Amino acid sequence: MADDLAAFCHAVLRAVGADEATADAATRAMMHGSRLGVDSHGVRLLEHYAGVLEAGRVARAPYVTIVRELGAVATLDAGFGHGALAGYRAMEKAISIASTYGIGAVGIRNMSHFGPAGAYAVEAAKAGLIGFATCNSDSLVRLHDGAALFHGTNPLAWSAPVKGQRPWLLDMATSAVPFNRVLLYRSLGLAMPADTASDEAGAATTDPHATAMLAPLGAAFGFKGAGLAGVAEVFSAVLTGMQLSTELLPMSSQDKTTPRALGGYMMAINPDAFVDRPVFDDTMTRYLANLRSSPARPGTIVMAPGDREWAEWDRREVAGIPIDPDTEAAFARFAEAHGLDPLPIRPAG
Amino acid sequence: MADDLAAFCHAVLRAVGADEATADAATRAMMHGSRLGVDSHGVRLLEHYAGVLEAGRVARAPYVTIVRELGAVATLDAGFGHGALAGYRAMEKAISIASTYGIGAVGIRNMSHFGPAGAYAVEAAKAGLIGFATCNSDSLVRLHDGAALFHGTNPLAWSAPVKGQRPWLLDMATSAVPFNRVLLYRSLGLAMPADTASDEAGAATTDPHATAMLAPLGAAFGFKGAGLAGVAEVFSAVLTGMQLSTELLPMSSQDKTTPRALGGYMMAINPDAFVDRPVFDDTMTRYLANLRSSPARPGTIVMAPGDREWAEWDRREVAGIPIDPDTEAAFARFAEAHGLDPLPIRPAG
Repeated sequence: MADDLAAFCHAVLRAVGADEATADAATRAMMHGSRLGVDSHGVRLLEHYAGVLEAGRVARAPYVTIVRELGAVATLDAGFGHGALAGYRAMEKAISIASTYGIGAVGIRNMSHFGPAGAYAVEAAKAGLIGFATCNSDSLVRLHDGAALFHGTNPLAWSAPVKGQRPWLLDMATSAVPFNRVLLYRSLGLAMPADTASDEAGAATTDPHATAMLAPLGAAFGFKGAGLAGVAEVFSAVLTGMQLSTELLPMSSQDKTTPRALGGYMMAINPDAFVDRPVFDDTMTRYLANLRSSPARPGTIVMAPGDREWAEWDRREVAGIPIDPDTEAAFARFAEAHGLDPLPIRPAG
Repeated sequence: MADDLAAFCHAVLRAVGADEATADAATRAMMHGSRLGVDSHGVRLLEHYAGVLEAGRVARAPYVTIVRELGAVATLDAGFGHGALAGYRAMEKAISIASTYGIGAVGIRNMSHFGPAGAYAVEAAKAGLIGFATCNSDSLVRLHDGAALFHGTNPLAWSAPVKGQRPWLLDMATSAVPFNRVLLYRSLGLAMPADTASDEAGAATTDPHATAMLAPLGAAFGFKGAGLAGVAEVFSAVLTGMQLSTELLPMSSQDKTTPRALGGYMMAINPDAFVDRPVFDDTMTRYLANLRSSPARPGTIVMAPGDREWAEWDRREVAGIPIDPDTEAAFARFAEAHGLDPLPIRPAG
């Protein structure tokens, strides 16, 4: 049934004019989120993507090309197309470079929202390499001691291959929580966790309705989270000459025709260039075995990055992928508008 | 007077048998810490370094060599010598590779404690490149929901050049606080900040005397800090086949003769390979100007990574570098033992 969901997303994207490559890439990235349980970056994005493709902010048939190449580095111009197409192309290029040079880095210019950074990082691990993916995004997070929106939730994602297992996969926003959490807590009438949200003056709040900005990761040590957001900014916007978080048209803007000129960065690292593969494999396996068997506090378990998400993937293979009510309604509208068969829906919650 | 302090450290290291290159590198790394106000990684390490060099855990005249090289990647064997020598040599090599290939990555094998990761990252920025440096270290930090020592404080450091200014420099432990903070709070009789420390069962504590392990960065979202510690582990130990944090002889072990076989990783990235230099420079300058002028909460200021440290560097240029009482006593013993002129001391605090 995940296949039906993917086919539905693909059909909608094609129906609004996306070319085959764009529909493939955007569907693949959304399904990464939906299969792994990262619903904020799953198929709920279809409505947004269809809207910006239809209106023209995102090019439906972009000219994506390498515009600069030197040694182990390349820069890809995404032609203001969908970020997922740019992200997969850039990571493929980084992996290809790394097979020759041991490491490959690709900057991305003129991109749009690419969804879950982990979707691209994990491609490297699936090819036996270490992966890194980042981008910046429009301002939603205050600085440490800041009283104004500054960085985006600027994700950092790393992956590593694990012999005979699914990849080690860390995909994290550099804010304390994703902004989606605020929307969720508003709709559920719940309080925000401590140290995650601030009001318009930058003062800490737990009221999701008063929340005007997110806190950087780290609570009292939020200068570390803000610094990590800066890493995303330097690699994504500074290294590509693209717009800073504070300069970007918000993703949610009513202006759906002006391109956003997002930057991004992908990197692949070939362990074989550093060490014999059996040594790498043995050390990685030992690390994860040690981690998973490390004592936990009563009533909890310890997990490696990705463990929770891969387990959710398996659960959803059986139970199906849950769809929230807003997305279900959007799907029904799409089916009606484009003459598609309605999807059987597993309700969320 | 910083020069006098450096000369004193150098003389002590030479007196215990370190070769010129080792004494130079270790002094340079310690002075990076002491000048920037990172006293945990400053000249207080001299006593430790002299002890392990004298006893033999760290080789006094190591054979440091590149043992593997492919494209834009190299691996350096530190010959069980001082980590600072390995760190500087590896970053020099990464910078050299990046001048040809746009990016350069160097793994380090058979290293010892290298002090402040930022000392190596900043070398890339001084050469006009983006830098990254990491290593793992012996277990002091629990996992998220963990009840046992697992990762080291595993630092991650990034730097970037800023035209006409000192580098942007993020040098952070992936634990909530460094272990040194526990020792400091014990001696001062102060409570630990919330969410930074756990007792022997992994339960949160603010009693520094009950503190048996540190918390990962992130408080309630400590899975991110633990994941970042994993990044250090994958790059430093897994990619080099070195010992995991849980396997390392503790730095503080009474066994001062067995080498520790630490791994490390250095990377340099040449912006010129991605974008025209004026575009990079303008974007970086604009980013930092925006950041420093972003509104702060009442009574606070916002700072970029490194701002606090570079300002401290300037203050210490005038006021001198403060020395804590234990280190002052060690210096007096060294002066006596090796016939060196005693240093004029600026007391800490």
